[in-house]
Amino acid sequence: MFFHTQEMQFTASPSQPDAVFARRLQEVLGGQYGEITVAMQYGFQSWNCHLPGKYRDLLYGIGAEEFGHVEMLAIMIAQLLEKAPVEQSEAAAEADPVLGAVLGGTDVQAAIVAGAGARPVDSNGNPWQGSYITASGNLLADFTANANAEMQGRLQVARLYNMTDDHGVRDLLSFLLARDTMHQNQWIAAARELQEEGAEDLPVPSNFPLSKEAREHSYQYLNFSDGEEAANGSWASGPSPDGKGEFSYHDGPESTVPMPPPTRPDPRLYGTDPAPNIVDKATGMIKDAFSEK
Amino acid sequence: MFFHTQEMQFTASPSQPDAVFARRLQEVLGGQYGEITVAMQYGFQSWNCHLPGKYRDLLYGIGAEEFGHVEMLAIMIAQLLEKAPVEQSEAAAEADPVLGAVLGGTDVQAAIVAGAGARPVDSNGNPWQGSYITASGNLLADFTANANAEMQGRLQVARLYNMTDDHGVRDLLSFLLARDTMHQNQWIAAARELQEEGAEDLPVPSNFPLSKEAREHSYQYLNFSDGEEAANGSWASGPSPDGKGEFSYHDGPESTVPMPPPTRPDPRLYGTDPAPNIVDKATGMIKDAFSEK
Amino acid sequence: MFFHTQEMQFTASPSQPDAVFARRLQEVLGGQYGEITVAMQYGFQSWNCHLPGKYRDLLYGIGAEEFGHVEMLAIMIAQLLEKAPVEQSEAAAEADPVLGAVLGGTDVQAAIVAGAGARPVDSNGNPWQGSYITASGNLLADFTANANAEMQGRLQVARLYNMTDDHGVRDLLSFLLARDTMHQNQWIAAARELQEEGAEDLPVPSNFPLSKEAREHSYQYLNFSDGEEAANGSWASGPSPDGKGEFSYHDGPESTVPMPPPTRPDPRLYGTDPAPNIVDKATGMIKDAFSEK
Amino acid sequence: MFFHTQEMQFTASPSQPDAVFARRLQEVLGGQYGEITVAMQYGFQSWNCHLPGKYRDLLYGIGAEEFGHVEMLAIMIAQLLEKAPVEQSEAAAEADPVLGAVLGGTDVQAAIVAGAGARPVDSNGNPWQGSYITASGNLLADFTANANAEMQGRLQVARLYNMTDDHGVRDLLSFLLARDTMHQNQWIAAARELQEEGAEDLPVPSNFPLSKEAREHSYQYLNFSDGEEAANGSWASGPSPDGKGEFSYHDGPESTVPMPPPTRPDPRLYGTDPAPNIVDKATGMIKDAFSEK
Amino acid sequence: MFFHTQEMQFTASPSQPDAVFARRLQEVLGGQYGEITVAMQYGFQSWNCHLPGKYRDLLYGIGAEEFGHVEMLAIMIAQLLEKAPVEQSEAAAEADPVLGAVLGGTDVQAAIVAGAGARPVDSNGNPWQGSYITASGNLLADFTANANAEMQGRLQVARLYNMTDDHGVRDLLSFLLARDTMHQNQWIAAARELQEEGAEDLPVPSNFPLSKEAREHSYQYLNFSDGEEAANGSWASGPSPDGKGEFSYHDGPESTVPMPPPTRPDPRLYGTDPAPNIVDKATGMIKDAFSEK
Amino acid sequence: MFFHTQEMQFTASPSQPDAVFARRLQEVLGGQYGEITVAMQYGFQSWNCHLPGKYRDLLYGIGAEEFGHVEMLAIMIAQLLEKAPVEQSEAAAEADPVLGAVLGGTDVQAAIVAGAGARPVDSNGNPWQGSYITASGNLLADFTANANAEMQGRLQVARLYNMTDDHGVRDLLSFLLARDTMHQNQWIAAARELQEEGAEDLPVPSNFPLSKEAREHSYQYLNFSDGEEAANGSWASGPSPDGKGEFSYHDGPESTVPMPPPTRPDPRLYGTDPAPNIVDKATGMIKDAFSEK
Repeated sequence: MFFHTQEMQFTASPSQPDAVFARRLQEVLGGQYGEITVAMQYGFQSWNCHLPGKYRDLLYGIGAEEFGHVEMLAIMIAQLLEKAPVEQSEAAAEADPVLGAVLGGTDVQAAIVAGAGARPVDSNGNPWQGSYITASGNLLADFTANANAEMQGRLQVARLYNMTDDHGVRDLLSFLLARDTMHQNQWIAAARELQEEGAEDLPVPSNFPLSKEAREHSYQYLNFSDGEEAANGSWASGPSPDGKGEFSYHDGPESTVPMPPPTRPDPRLYGTDPAPNIVDKATGMIKDAFSEK
Repeated sequence: MFFHTQEMQFTASPSQPDAVFARRLQEVLGGQYGEITVAMQYGFQSWNCHLPGKYRDLLYGIGAEEFGHVEMLAIMIAQLLEKAPVEQSEAAAEADPVLGAVLGGTDVQAAIVAGAGARPVDSNGNPWQGSYITASGNLLADFTANANAEMQGRLQVARLYNMTDDHGVRDLLSFLLARDTMHQNQWIAAARELQEEGAEDLPVPSNFPLSKEAREHSYQYLNFSDGEEAANGSWASGPSPDGKGEFSYHDGPESTVPMPPPTRPDPRLYGTDPAPNIVDKATGMIKDAFSEK
Repeated sequence: MFFHTQEMQFTASPSQPDAVFARRLQEVLGGQYGEITVAMQYGFQSWNCHLPGKYRDLLYGIGAEEFGHVEMLAIMIAQLLEKAPVEQSEAAAEADPVLGAVLGGTDVQAAIVAGAGARPVDSNGNPWQGSYITASGNLLADFTANANAEMQGRLQVARLYNMTDDHGVRDLLSFLLARDTMHQNQWIAAARELQEEGAEDLPVPSNFPLSKEAREHSYQYLNFSDGEEAANGSWASGPSPDGKGEFSYHDGPESTVPMPPPTRPDPRLYGTDPAPNIVDKATGMIKDAFSEK
Repeated sequence: MFFHTQEMQFTASPSQPDAVFARRLQEVLGGQYGEITVAMQYGFQSWNCHLPGKYRDLLYGIGAEEFGHVEMLAIMIAQLLEKAPVEQSEAAAEADPVLGAVLGGTDVQAAIVAGAGARPVDSNGNPWQGSYITASGNLLADFTANANAEMQGRLQVARLYNMTDDHGVRDLLSFLLARDTMHQNQWIAAARELQEEGAEDLPVPSNFPLSKEAREHSYQYLNFSDGEEAANGSWASGPSPDGKGEFSYHDGPESTVPMPPPTRPDPRLYGTDPAPNIVDKATGMIKDAFSEK
Repeated sequence: MFFHTQEMQFTASPSQPDAVFARRLQEVLGGQYGEITVAMQYGFQSWNCHLPGKYRDLLYGIGAEEFGHVEMLAIMIAQLLEKAPVEQSEAAAEADPVLGAVLGGTDVQAAIVAGAGARPVDSNGNPWQGSYITASGNLLADFTANANAEMQGRLQVARLYNMTDDHGVRDLLSFLLARDTMHQNQWIAAARELQEEGAEDLPVPSNFPLSKEAREHSYQYLNFSDGEEAANGSWASGPSPDGKGEFSYHDGPESTVPMPPPTRPDPRLYGTDPAPNIVDKATGMIKDAFSEK
Repeated sequence: MFFHTQEMQFTASPSQPDAVFARRLQEVLGGQYGEITVAMQYGFQSWNCHLPGKYRDLLYGIGAEEFGHVEMLAIMIAQLLEKAPVEQSEAAAEADPVLGAVLGGTDVQAAIVAGAGARPVDSNGNPWQGSYITASGNLLADFTANANAEMQGRLQVARLYNMTDDHGVRDLLSFLLARDTMHQNQWIAAARELQEEGAEDLPVPSNFPLSKEAREHSYQYLNFSDGEEAANGSWASGPSPDGKGEFSYHDGPESTVPMPPPTRPDPRLYGTDPAPNIVDKATGMIKDAFSEK
């Protein structure tokens, strides 16, 4: 259950409106790695979690924070759009290149659809979608997904920092950078703790019986390109991170098998037939006739 | 540049057709974490890579392997569908519950659209999409994304393993499990090597100036839920994995700020106005009149 | 800012697992009119709201409730899936038609992707998307959108009620029906209050200058089909609900205009040309040559 | 059955081309609330309608009009694009900021994909999609959806009116505003008539047995945020619009229940297990072994 | 402008309801090559057409027919769904495998969302989308797209024919097959006529100056796989269909070029740097400091 | 199986960066008819192909070339973006209209998401999706789809050619134009060869029994619009291209049938009822009561 308070974790007001930057900021609100993604991702991971206790509490504890970040960004974006220019025709752009320069960089739907409001979309106007999130029920996999999400998110915020010099916006971004630092560290710590406690291990899922895996292929680096430098990496020789194997390097696959023959499904699917002669067609038609009512 | 050979890395033929399992197998072909995703992800990471040498060679070397896995799965699925029943009406299902049971579990588009063929979709028929991939230009973030993708992928293959007892299918899955084991290990090794060589570090991106981050918020666990167990995790006290801070635990945010006042954009966007009285409307109309040609 | 408590507004536990119904219930979690939609819709409406006071408080007050409903449904679905059968092959379905019947009705991704967990998708597995929500900045339009969303939502819950006889599930649905009753009534009341207070009126947006509208077309029912019964409705004669006009009925449009001539854009776009003779092509090539560097 | 005439209901020619505005106008052609949406929405509502007579005739009568509006907008957009500049490189923009200003605001696919033509997309280039429409079979819900669609549509047209000063475009917009005025009024009238005739009532669906609803929750305003003004609205006390209850105001939920314990699905889904000790794993492996062939 | 009549081109009533087949039939209503696609495709081609006269009249003439086919299929589907079973729980399926067999094959949203109605989606429930259509402004390209659409459409209808033995449904399908036969033939005839009249030619677009094309690569078959049979096709030797070249066969590319060096974008994008040493980072930070306000 | 070499088929380096053109070039990388589409389309057609030999070898042989084109375009785009301006705020645009002009035309996600890298999206930022491809199992239909794809692709490249004057970019485009010329010709040749060999014929699918088609409708041009010029085309009289019929022209449909009565599904779906009187409702409630547990 969620309760809302009409406060924010940090100030989220720009020094002045900037409709161009508003569009860019939509990326970390409604993009693949925006705040809606992490809020929903931690939500679904907690609701699907099979363990009571510290890991689920962690997911609940941070999930609600992220919904608050969604709110902070939406409110910031609405303020950045507050004075967005309404004149948006080609004539207006021609008469005033400065205005034109601005118009070209804005999200036109922010005005037409939302009346100068934030929207659940990314910086190109693609709607946020449920397929951005990951919640598999396997916590080591999911915490790795979370660490990645926080890394991508902090990277995007860092890039956005250099696209504005508005002090109010930079203040908010410096705060979000800090929280992303925390969350990167947190998920890495949690992933380690899971492994130290034996709850999960590499390779994920660690409780799949290794006897059912074709283990002879499990630690081979197979080079399918002609660059040779990859042989020098730690993934090409020495012990593997899961502690269960030794890496080896191979130029391409060790062995190959011929392709199976093409399939030949039911003729009533009317694919192009390998032996399209009259006899064959006749057979098809006869079969067909029999199957008819 | 890519060259194709009409061979496969491993056998990919079922002992017998199974249209129900064909649908399920689409998940690891065309789903969020299927083979198309990792093939395209490693492709775009290599094409956008800023470093010549071992990391880019690694991306090229494995990317081409994954395109071959796309092929193996597509060919396997086509064979699983080869004898898919054509009769698919309600009457057929009623007359033969066994047939009906089968029909209910198949992807109807495999027959209608592809004529018993594989498709670039997931197990629910959602088309694969470009927004599944990650290629940020930052290798530590991206290698973490890759490790996650291989974990989720291996997890899904392991689940699928238990949904069939076909020896041919299980053989292929046991091979894919092995390669996913390799690739999980490999990306984890590569991520470590990047950090050991100083090319990148935590928090990602490590070359963003820390002075611009609100560091006082960078290592605080803020609990926005009422579960108390998260205080016992390694993310709530002690040194952080990035080696740059000390975790602390807090029940909720340390401080809050009031919300900014609501925005009041241009009246010509016709949002609902905070002071909707006659005078105000008149002003809007006058402004409007002036702006008209 | 949002805070979470590990409680729920109402019990959300099934009497027994039911993977078939779990899939159906996804509709009101992650579908076009599911709880994610209303939660996000009320959220964005509040963040974009231009008025402090009762209307914004209303949006905030109900938005957080809806996020809790997202949680309730996700937790219910996870429980419905708890004992979902793992065997999902064609052979399993053939061996046991009862199992097959069940398998056909389940969401296969719930198992493969989420490990028997809820997902932000609808009952056909389409991911939730940001384009489901409406937040225009105009409160009368948006409250009408909200009333519609609650009506569609209650309708879907009512339909689902008859698709199960599980007492636990029906209890939750009877609660959701009640809340949807409240919310339908509430948005209708709020829409009326907006109009009574003069904040907004019909036709939306009421503060667009009527002088700029082609008013002679504003109250005509134009019949573009050959059914004649529509002439008997209250929309075909008598005063209009906005109190500003009188409806009239017309068999088709009162007048028409000829189509403008086809466009003829720049020849360098290589569309098929209205006068594709040699002279004309030559001109194009000459122009082209001049524009080249 | 539909018949086409090569005429239009109203003039749809701009005074001069304007590629920037063409992009904006795509919103009301192919956006969430554009003409394609209402045309298809009224179409599907009529085809699914369970009643012969005036309501279905109304749906047919207006649906065909809306397909004509799709055509008018497409033809208008093609004319606005007729002289769209072909030069679109960075060098061109640098050489001529005025051109650059224009280019920035155009839909690049209008040129590359459509050769200066209209497309079934919104103003950000998102393709129109079937999930925009509503056709539930319940006419009161659907007429409310229709009223909302016409309100949002008229709002967007009104916003667009102020983004151009082209007389030809404004003429068309003033006509569309008028038709949207009609259609708002019409759906509101039709919704009232449905209720007056007893065909449907609030709460939708009115023929769901109230005895199956948890009526004690049906008229409570539950405030999940800390704003107190919502207590003053007509939704917080007094009779409800459906005439079946009395609103009451409550600060948060009246009662809560504890969360159910986490689920623990089949171990062969390899989620992270609540008791991940050796014994437990062994059990899993044993079970697994038995289930193997 | 479109007018509607409450008649149909052909009977569209099933002998009896069949909810399983209703789902399948959605493919040719709302799928990639369904009737909505061709209706909208011919519509946009006509609205964007640059030529008055027979080709545009053809597009208008057939476009309106296709909208009528949308209607016929929607009405057929609604009838197929009329008696769709409401009981859809796992318990119902277990109690009655026949019912279960049926339920598994239905589109659950047809009941929950549409109340036993047709929807603008394909047979897997994916919403129809604007990106299915093609309207490029080049008529030879577009007529080829149209021929393909009619071929794929007829193929799907032919497959569906064998999935039912309902006489009413088969009657409608036999009619649609006939119309698809007509439309395939028609677009092929129209494409030929365009070429015979010199309005357009191969290669499309034929009015792009050939001097700007790297003609030495224009007729080479380059074999990037190791199958050798393609050398025997008419595409590997002899004159090309455009009459402008002679095919030749080559085992792989004639020549190759080395890859360009990796890019090295602005350091403020925080990609992983090719020379990640201290000096370099320092430079980045200094640059950064200077660019700050 | 695919192997990669770190070479390219042709040079793909711009004379200088051009972030505006980079965005446009994304269309032929990740758009509906971009290189990802043809690479995946030929891939799936080959994997689903039912014939060994020259046609499948052709699909394999060209498919791998197209994956190399994906690479070339991605590498070109990364270079075009290499010096993309980072300053992207409204203030920056206002201070420097030239910069502003540039910024407006760029894909903001190229910087924020990919750090100046290529992405699997089109020129409006829509992610590539699996529904762009066609692979039906019927080779004549699919080769026609391929011919269309290569026509649309060449058309788009030709348009892009005129949007830049960069010699390096134009070199690559002139190469792609040549390959598209080859591939158009090749698919047309292959489609002819299929027909000459009798493997497939018009109308597709040619092996569907003609006796099951309503042949009286198979060669009629039915004019559903009021333009009369279409009567003069080769599709309105004379022999049809399939050699099996004679075209005829008709002003509208030859005959029509009345619509079937509206459906009346199960009352527990709560649609609006054709006879909404008390008796009828009562019946519904009684039925309902009986079906309850």
